[in-house]
Amino acid sequence: MPRYRLTVEYDGHDFVGWQRQDNGPSVQAALETAIAAFCGHDVTVFAAGRTDAGVHAAAQTVHVDLAKAMPADKVRDAANFHLKPRPVAVLAAAPVDEAFHARFSAVGRRYVYRIVNRRAPLTYLRGRAWHVVPPLDADAMHRAAQALVGRHDFTTFRSVQCQAKSPLKTLTALDVTRDGEAVRITALARSFLHNQVRSMVGSLKKVGEGRWAEDEIAAALAARDRSRCGPVAPPDGLYLDAVLYAGDPGAVALTAGTA
Amino acid sequence: MPRYRLTVEYDGHDFVGWQRQDNGPSVQAALETAIAAFCGHDVTVFAAGRTDAGVHAAAQTVHVDLAKAMPADKVRDAANFHLKPRPVAVLAAAPVDEAFHARFSAVGRRYVYRIVNRRAPLTYLRGRAWHVVPPLDADAMHRAAQALVGRHDFTTFRSVQCQAKSPLKTLTALDVTRDGEAVRITALARSFLHNQVRSMVGSLKKVGEGRWAEDEIAAALAARDRSRCGPVAPPDGLYLDAVLYAGDPGAVALTAGTA
Repeated sequence: MPRYRLTVEYDGHDFVGWQRQDNGPSVQAALETAIAAFCGHDVTVFAAGRTDAGVHAAAQTVHVDLAKAMPADKVRDAANFHLKPRPVAVLAAAPVDEAFHARFSAVGRRYVYRIVNRRAPLTYLRGRAWHVVPPLDADAMHRAAQALVGRHDFTTFRSVQCQAKSPLKTLTALDVTRDGEAVRITALARSFLHNQVRSMVGSLKKVGEGRWAEDEIAAALAARDRSRCGPVAPPDGLYLDAVLYAGDPGAVALTAGTA
Repeated sequence: MPRYRLTVEYDGHDFVGWQRQDNGPSVQAALETAIAAFCGHDVTVFAAGRTDAGVHAAAQTVHVDLAKAMPADKVRDAANFHLKPRPVAVLAAAPVDEAFHARFSAVGRRYVYRIVNRRAPLTYLRGRAWHVVPPLDADAMHRAAQALVGRHDFTTFRSVQCQAKSPLKTLTALDVTRDGEAVRITALARSFLHNQVRSMVGSLKKVGEGRWAEDEIAAALAARDRSRCGPVAPPDGLYLDAVLYAGDPGAVALTAGTA
């Protein structure tokens, strides 16, 4: 069956998350329903990252098999037509070899976490960023974050529900920058544990507020103890920003890393 | 009565516009109701720019008179408390002299218009940017826009409902830039006519698509004929981005200009 790779953007606010669930609308179900509407048969879409409820995607990557080949641009446009008015859009579609798997072929994932650091509540960014009132020292957060880069046991920074067999992951980069009231945290790795980014962000916020010393991040990591994690950051600010595959621009630096 | 200057951010999507109206919720009514709730008397707020339905503000400026003086930070926080959950927030409050008038003392207004130029529909930017599918030549738009800078009769680019006595305005700057799929138009003037920015943007979009030659902007301006304007751009992409007063940083360059 002809296989297509789709790049998908969505507003996670009104969804129970990526994955199909009984308790509400999922991004997966929205996409599968839209594709089935024009290809005439049931489909299953596989995603690189199973984002949680409220988490957004600027460039989720999925693959899907269709019974009959169609021009990739038609797949994109037909999916978008049937997705309306839901806040999910297919940015790009391309035919791929059947060896391609959106989840298992991915060699890198980049998440961006957006914080708006100010006293006043959010208006047009509500649900799309984390509103943090205490002034954050982004430089201190960035310095503390460097203790997490590299291959580590991330037990402290993963959900107790995480189903990964091993807590060992290689974090390729974790950068914290500020532009006015916007604080942005960018995390890059081959793959992440469940809630890993939000757990790291919640802990780094403690450093930014001055309530944790910078070296408490390294100590929490070394403890391999979930109870040492700061409060998990809300989903609102999290965006799956890019998924990289071997051969993609930017993937070279990552293929050296291991899970 | 003690007067306060407030800097206000809002998502215009669910409002009938800035101005109090009978047909739905206005930003003015939301703010007046919130302030009355803590100061204990009716108030009227005066705004620098009376934005239309669906138009947003990153930094609208208003003034309000209270019966009794309060610390400015308390005014800001109490207003925000009573504004919840509406998407309106007071970013800053400061006591000002009674000679200060948010509308009449303003010496400059800056609007930003956001376009997302791509084939796929919008998701988390829906209602917050204009989705334009045909590829836009932002450089051509910028070159064409320069014909509008300066003191001109803007009859072509104002709403037929515009109540200003004169169509003469001095446009200080009109810049078009692109960053990936984002096209941003920034307009700076002492003041604008009704629908002027959206009229200029709608016409520049025609140039960007290649459906108008660059010099048709100058010709449309010279015609002083509303029927020569391109289709008015939707409110979704428009943000009142800054209001400048004499003495504010950045206001110096503008005070030389006239209305």
